[in-house]
Amino acid sequence: MEKGSILYEGKAKRIYTTVEEEVVWVEYKNSATAFNGEKKTDIEGKGALNNKITSLLFSKLQEQGIESHFMEKISDHEQLVKRVAIIPLEVVVRNVAAGSLSKRIGLEEGTPLKQTIVEFYYKNDELGDPLLTDEHIDLLQLATQDERQELKQKALQVNDFLKTLFDDIGVRLIDFKLEFGKDAEGHILLADEISPDTCRLWDKETNQKLDKDVFRRDLGSLTDVYQIILERLGGSKLCTK
Amino acid sequence: MEKGSILYEGKAKRIYTTVEEEVVWVEYKNSATAFNGEKKTDIEGKGALNNKITSLLFSKLQEQGIESHFMEKISDHEQLVKRVAIIPLEVVVRNVAAGSLSKRIGLEEGTPLKQTIVEFYYKNDELGDPLLTDEHIDLLQLATQDERQELKQKALQVNDFLKTLFDDIGVRLIDFKLEFGKDAEGHILLADEISPDTCRLWDKETNQKLDKDVFRRDLGSLTDVYQIILERLGGSKLCTK
Repeated sequence: MEKGSILYEGKAKRIYTTVEEEVVWVEYKNSATAFNGEKKTDIEGKGALNNKITSLLFSKLQEQGIESHFMEKISDHEQLVKRVAIIPLEVVVRNVAAGSLSKRIGLEEGTPLKQTIVEFYYKNDELGDPLLTDEHIDLLQLATQDERQELKQKALQVNDFLKTLFDDIGVRLIDFKLEFGKDAEGHILLADEISPDTCRLWDKETNQKLDKDVFRRDLGSLTDVYQIILERLGGSKLCTK
Repeated sequence: MEKGSILYEGKAKRIYTTVEEEVVWVEYKNSATAFNGEKKTDIEGKGALNNKITSLLFSKLQEQGIESHFMEKISDHEQLVKRVAIIPLEVVVRNVAAGSLSKRIGLEEGTPLKQTIVEFYYKNDELGDPLLTDEHIDLLQLATQDERQELKQKALQVNDFLKTLFDDIGVRLIDFKLEFGKDAEGHILLADEISPDTCRLWDKETNQKLDKDVFRRDLGSLTDVYQIILERLGGSKLCTK
């Protein structure tokens, strides 16, 4: 298969058509952005690391019966995925207080939450990806009540699986962001990526941050810590092609 | 009855004990504040206007069977109310997009909402009164699910009544903020105030703002527009001690 014309370019990926209507070609870029694009740089190797980690995690999730748009990793920094219409909601799952939740409710970063929470943010750069309540989502008709329930339930399933997976490799899954899309039949599929760009991952022993906060907060080499995640996931063996 | 020792001083009111355990004395101050206290000044007559408008509205609500902490207006700028423990949630009801909702979801100010929405904000100056979802409220144990339902239902009842009341005097009720408290028996009562400090009120014909946005946005004399609201509500006759 070859890549066709560009469909969309986001902050971290480019999406191309393929000869098959329902398949698109995803190219992971090396750009690192934070604070709604205000902080931005290129980091050699980042695209490949996120592509490898995402491919690995989506494969493992599919083995567990958690469907996603992922089809195949086709090169270090590229994959083929099913074409979906992205639902403009960022679904955030939190096990431990950090980042914007800590700021919002005044809970110190690192405080375990008594219950896992799921938040919805409006995927809208112009508005700064604001937090939405269920009523805002209804008002904007971004998802029906049933769809919200389905998104939430799927996000919690992903959390259950990933929490154990990361725990087994000495990493705490603090929080993460998912995106979902609808395929041609209207089925909701997990989409986008799952990587240290979209998760907070802390070493269980040292609390070292192994995620994009390293870039956001200038804590060292981003690719070094992403590489640690890839290796612990057993993915260094995947570094073919 | 006489006022006792001070219990609490907020941005707009002082609360004093009385000889009766379950009754407190509320003194409306002349201070006008906005943007979480960053903009602040004293405006002669403001306290009295808010006391009169609040007394009038709480009385009318009570006639409709909507209970509140309000007992009696005892002077131009003072009232007696039942003692309640304030629930630290600001309950915001919106009929038309304005203010922070317009900014959050990108809906132009003045756009009527397809459905009335109710939002909960954390009453916490230090955190800047952030928006909360139901899950945040659960996590912080600020209110149970049943209590949230009760707050929402009472807020919508207040809205139904006030929308008609204001409509009858040529004013659109854009949005407003309520606070609730629990009395000694644990019953939830409407509390705090309902005034142009806590409502957005626009003239139906001219769209003139008749509320605190006049102060927030430097649109003229605050007391002039609060006086218009008081007069249209028939409250100028109430300006006795």
